[in-house]
Amino acid sequence: MSPERPTHTARRMADIEPFHVMELLGRARELEAAGHDIVHMEIGEPDFGTPEPIIERARQALTDGHTHYTPALGLPALREAIAGHYRDRYGVEIDPGRVVITPGASGALLLALGVLLDRDDELLLADPGYPCNRHFARFVEGQARGVPVDATTRYQLDAERLSAHWNERCVAALVASPSNPTGTLLERSELAALAESVRVRSGRLIVDEIYHGLTYGIEAETVLAVDHGAFVVNSFSKYFCMTGWRLGWLVAPEEYQREVEKLMQNLFIAAPTLAQHAALAAFEPETRKILESRRAEFERRRDFLLPALRELGFEIPVEPRGAFYLYADCSRFGDSKQLASDLLEKAGVAVTPGLDFGNYRPEQHLRFAYTTSMERLEEGVRRIAGFLRVDNH
Amino acid sequence: MSPERPTHTARRMADIEPFHVMELLGRARELEAAGHDIVHMEIGEPDFGTPEPIIERARQALTDGHTHYTPALGLPALREAIAGHYRDRYGVEIDPGRVVITPGASGALLLALGVLLDRDDELLLADPGYPCNRHFARFVEGQARGVPVDATTRYQLDAERLSAHWNERCVAALVASPSNPTGTLLERSELAALAESVRVRSGRLIVDEIYHGLTYGIEAETVLAVDHGAFVVNSFSKYFCMTGWRLGWLVAPEEYQREVEKLMQNLFIAAPTLAQHAALAAFEPETRKILESRRAEFERRRDFLLPALRELGFEIPVEPRGAFYLYADCSRFGDSKQLASDLLEKAGVAVTPGLDFGNYRPEQHLRFAYTTSMERLEEGVRRIAGFLRVDNH
Ligand SMILES: Cc1ncc(COP(=O)(O)O)c(C=O)c1O
Ligand SMILES: Cc1ncc(COP(=O)(O)O)c(C=O)c1O
Repeated sequence: MSPERPTHTARRMADIEPFHVMELLGRARELEAAGHDIVHMEIGEPDFGTPEPIIERARQALTDGHTHYTPALGLPALREAIAGHYRDRYGVEIDPGRVVITPGASGALLLALGVLLDRDDELLLADPGYPCNRHFARFVEGQARGVPVDATTRYQLDAERLSAHWNERCVAALVASPSNPTGTLLERSELAALAESVRVRSGRLIVDEIYHGLTYGIEAETVLAVDHGAFVVNSFSKYFCMTGWRLGWLVAPEEYQREVEKLMQNLFIAAPTLAQHAALAAFEPETRKILESRRAEFERRRDFLLPALRELGFEIPVEPRGAFYLYADCSRFGDSKQLASDLLEKAGVAVTPGLDFGNYRPEQHLRFAYTTSMERLEEGVRRIAGFLRVDNH
Repeated sequence: MSPERPTHTARRMADIEPFHVMELLGRARELEAAGHDIVHMEIGEPDFGTPEPIIERARQALTDGHTHYTPALGLPALREAIAGHYRDRYGVEIDPGRVVITPGASGALLLALGVLLDRDDELLLADPGYPCNRHFARFVEGQARGVPVDATTRYQLDAERLSAHWNERCVAALVASPSNPTGTLLERSELAALAESVRVRSGRLIVDEIYHGLTYGIEAETVLAVDHGAFVVNSFSKYFCMTGWRLGWLVAPEEYQREVEKLMQNLFIAAPTLAQHAALAAFEPETRKILESRRAEFERRRDFLLPALRELGFEIPVEPRGAFYLYADCSRFGDSKQLASDLLEKAGVAVTPGLDFGNYRPEQHLRFAYTTSMERLEEGVRRIAGFLRVDNH
């Protein structure tokens, strides 16, 4: 057969970008393979493994032979446990029937946007933000409209910007609190204002709460405390240190329950069974204790890295109080992509250039992740300091 | 907030149907809860648990702490193992770089269709067929065009029907061999003819090979033996008895590799890590031995159930030689949906009405799955016989 057969590719693929940091990661691996030591400050997942009580529950599930499909919406016991989590942690009552167990927050986002976005419908979101969001929208032939945000709103969409950017094609707005890449949160009053602002426009608010639990000196507020019509996306990936298990959840408004179930059945059949059984141990006191000590460790790291980077001349005008990221203005050192490349090649430090998070001033920003040990962070800062001294004086 | 807020739902949701059998299953559970015994012949997954060597490998992965994300395309060792599987089992050489590890065949189908189908592009497929396929197409705003197939082509799309139904909006055709719900296969020459037929139209052939390995008195042919431009969908769910692990794969043509990787990163991040490690044991001789004895057991069941149902008056004109389904014309007993309901309520036997598999004569067909023990199948047949005698004489 002729190798020059024409290749038809869906147009959406031209708009769906790869994770740019993967190139950098590939280069980092090459350098490591050649014997160089690299400090990794680009990784978007906890360096900690899954807590032992969860591992132990998975072992038990293996022994018990839990290897078949679960119901599409998930194990009833896990849906109950998540509803219990909202009660215990936030004092919010939700019907377990509204909780859908998904393959990660990724799966939850795809469900929510698949149910909401018609072709050419628009989704408002903050730029910078989690890059996959605009691609989920594009995947279903919708369109993400990035709203430039900066320090004046703690890099969050607010009701004012929302009303300024909302148009007749908008059907939903998506925010994340704490946010990736900025680590900033929305307060309860801000969530309520956003919810109201979307509601009066007959739209829906989607809140990605995946970094809940990882906050420092503050508790994250769930939008469910102020709007039962919102879609809430969450996951066992980050706070619970279960990235590789591919397990998350969606709390959908009651009136969308049936639609979400249909999509879940058809797109995914169900979330991974073993992960669901294992996650039953995620809310137990013993696990909580482990997770809280890790949270404290993330806080220590942030408390070290934030002033250290500011000292070096990176501008981080708003204190990030959640997740494990610092989003730094690096413009005084030049273009962020070049800088990231130089830091890797010349200083052995891997960071993520702004490019991965949107179109609003990406060239002025780097994301630093504190998902490595204090010693390595200290080493990273030493190396960056050395590089900047040589390079700028 | 007012509970009557307007509910905007994407139009696609009106075309995406639930699994109708779930209602029946729900009713079956009610009956069971009330003390009734139900013979389950509606379940689309092996009754066997995952083989012990795979379980053991999962235990080891837990101990080794493999709980983080893997690369988007999957563990290199697993991609190699799958390429090795094509070499060993089919004598076909493929570059492991073309193998993408996915969350089930479900994930592989979403990737393939996401890369190929623009809005309003059409996908040809056999009706009856796996119900999710048309929904995957609809999800990305494409359109599935079902081609009615019957016993004359062993319920498969063939080159003749393909050319009769292809129009300028078609960009791909999707077939499954063995097929769900019919259990019939495509021969090598038929695959080659389909491939050629699609190729000359500048389209792509997608072949769902998820039931490979589960064949009786025949070996399934992979389309990769005749067309390296095809997309191949496969999974650890069925032959390998790993449904709940949510693990499958896609072999994509080389020129689509980069596009598929972008989608995999953005939609899924990666397939479940533990499952990937566990699946490394799937191709080992010890596992193969277990799986082959199960295959033999499925064959025994088919050899019992096929003549038994024909004896009762169900028409199964083509011998199903794969998967674990029999698709039977039940028209002499009335409408299939009513019949399925009656069989459940009056005979305690659960089967799937044709409705779940398409629009071509669904009311005349039932799908029987032999995913339960021989004793239970015998009991099921006895009950159906009793019901039909009472009901029809
Ligand atoms: C803001 C945000 N949302 C969603 C996800 C998806 O995570 P997962 O699918 O592992 O739950 C991520 C992962 O990095 C994220 O940062
Ligand atoms: C023909 C066919 N394709 C794909 C799938 C999806 O299976 P999975 O996602 O578990 O691999 C199924 C499941 O029943 C099927 O029957």
